[in-house]
Amino acid sequence: MGEFELLQRVRERLPPPDGRILLGSGDDAAIAVPEGATATSVDALVEGIHFRRGEASLAQIGRKALGVALSDLAAMGAQPGEAYVVLGVPPDLDEDGCIELLDGLLGEAEATDTSLVGGDVTRATELFLAVTVVGHAAAPERLIKRSGAQPGDVLVVTGELGGAAAGLLLLDKLRDFAFIRDMGGSTSKSALDRREGERVGLVARQLEPRPRLAAGRALAGAGATAMIDLSDGLGGDANHLAAASGVELRIDGDALPLAAGLAEVATAAGRDPIELAVSGGEDYELLVALPTERLEEARRAVSESEGIALTRIGEVAAGDGVEIRLQPDGRRLEPEGFDQLG
Amino acid sequence: MGEFELLQRVRERLPPPDGRILLGSGDDAAIAVPEGATATSVDALVEGIHFRRGEASLAQIGRKALGVALSDLAAMGAQPGEAYVVLGVPPDLDEDGCIELLDGLLGEAEATDTSLVGGDVTRATELFLAVTVVGHAAAPERLIKRSGAQPGDVLVVTGELGGAAAGLLLLDKLRDFAFIRDMGGSTSKSALDRREGERVGLVARQLEPRPRLAAGRALAGAGATAMIDLSDGLGGDANHLAAASGVELRIDGDALPLAAGLAEVATAAGRDPIELAVSGGEDYELLVALPTERLEEARRAVSESEGIALTRIGEVAAGDGVEIRLQPDGRRLEPEGFDQLG
Repeated sequence: MGEFELLQRVRERLPPPDGRILLGSGDDAAIAVPEGATATSVDALVEGIHFRRGEASLAQIGRKALGVALSDLAAMGAQPGEAYVVLGVPPDLDEDGCIELLDGLLGEAEATDTSLVGGDVTRATELFLAVTVVGHAAAPERLIKRSGAQPGDVLVVTGELGGAAAGLLLLDKLRDFAFIRDMGGSTSKSALDRREGERVGLVARQLEPRPRLAAGRALAGAGATAMIDLSDGLGGDANHLAAASGVELRIDGDALPLAAGLAEVATAAGRDPIELAVSGGEDYELLVALPTERLEEARRAVSESEGIALTRIGEVAAGDGVEIRLQPDGRRLEPEGFDQLG
Repeated sequence: MGEFELLQRVRERLPPPDGRILLGSGDDAAIAVPEGATATSVDALVEGIHFRRGEASLAQIGRKALGVALSDLAAMGAQPGEAYVVLGVPPDLDEDGCIELLDGLLGEAEATDTSLVGGDVTRATELFLAVTVVGHAAAPERLIKRSGAQPGDVLVVTGELGGAAAGLLLLDKLRDFAFIRDMGGSTSKSALDRREGERVGLVARQLEPRPRLAAGRALAGAGATAMIDLSDGLGGDANHLAAASGVELRIDGDALPLAAGLAEVATAAGRDPIELAVSGGEDYELLVALPTERLEEARRAVSESEGIALTRIGEVAAGDGVEIRLQPDGRRLEPEGFDQLG
């Protein structure tokens, strides 16, 4: 495979530059004329660390690489704009494989209104993707940092938690676990169908995370004071937000919106479901602080824009650190880091 | 090594955000307010493909990773602005090694007035760096593409060619070649000193390339119609420029400015010096088309801004492709691809 031949095939698949992009791939650099403020973030997926070929298709790997990068823009409330991709190609990935990966990436780009406008392809020992994304906002104060949470704010989270961690268990330690058969309870057709749906849903949370771009912009518009996306897990990311804002986050463990099917998977793995939801990474939901009086407005805006729930899980207090309490005994949960590839 | 601990040490070394950067590392994304147009490019260095630890120090690897990315901005005539770095860390690179690499990168950032404002660190099997750079110009038409060369333009190149390829030979196939002893000729003290200086200079061209940022901006101001940096080698990159502009480039092989010491190294390796200069990559000089009447102005501007020569090596004609002729027989040179790690 020649690098130039592959780049040629890649360029043929890229949409022509438009909007603020004046020059796309194929020159020394892409040319853009941004307006207002930009939010820029980089993210990488590395084989054996963040994914395994075989568990995920090449298209899913490409899609996820862009998706997790865009999740950082979601957490700023930015409008996605441009993406630049470095692809490290190992000897056992042929040109068609590269194109399959790219097509997954382009699918995610189209779904999120992102333009893939530049990149680099290099030989490598292992497959890796490094993605830079640039988002936009009318003015810098429209972008939401991690550092603005105020004592008295409510703490909310989008969507459901723990699904990606449960999906990873189903792909790895529990890959021989017959989800449907072993979960007990009713074996009616409808119950079996529901469980199969849950299994598929959990695995999809791991392999095809959805950046909460519309929800992030809706929350920025609804007065969010601080926002972060949950890549490392609620426990770790809540600590980042608390430290950046100089506040304490008090979280009610029983209020966490657990992904459907998570409880059964956690039990099968000998894990506590809430602990798994707190320590499991890669959900790419948004953790947000906002003034109490704007909670209903925010809930409506997230529902209308992204079609998901916004759940109140605690509040912001003066102090520092994160406290996660469980009812009825008030036991404190100490989330451990969750090892991504088990 | 914990990722968070390393990131903390990294952040402590970064300068505080200023100018158009409103928020640097440590949040979900960096926030900037660009004015005018941006030029954005990505580039990656991978261990075993682009460098070998042992041949290059970690600081040199970091410096080169940023330098070669910035070379693309030089080729646009852009003012360097921000850099974002993904670092893939293999098991045998400890935290101090990562910091040494970063310090090389920060040295290059300071030397080029570039702000390192974001990044990502991930575990990996092999060491890799993926660098995104953003440059700026007052307006998009101030940025020079590959596509504007006109028949009748002169073709010029900055600095010297072939030095990086010769340096690579000295690090690899000719590493046992005693440059000073085996080169013949005078063995006076001054002749030996000069040769040692040439050896050091050639190796430095390979390990510490200098992006021609000031020259690039000077050439943009002096009417360059098309510009590209020489990363793949003059032969290959001239073809890119010719194809993008829809012209033929006629190059006089005997006019090429060869790096000092190149002839002796090429001979020792059984290579033709001019062929090595044409096919050897990584010189990161600029190949530029410009109107004949602006040649002297361009020469002066490059000399004053970057302190290097600008050499006329040919002209732009109607047609397509690249022709490199050698005197006195008019033999055509067919440059082959130069295998980067021999």
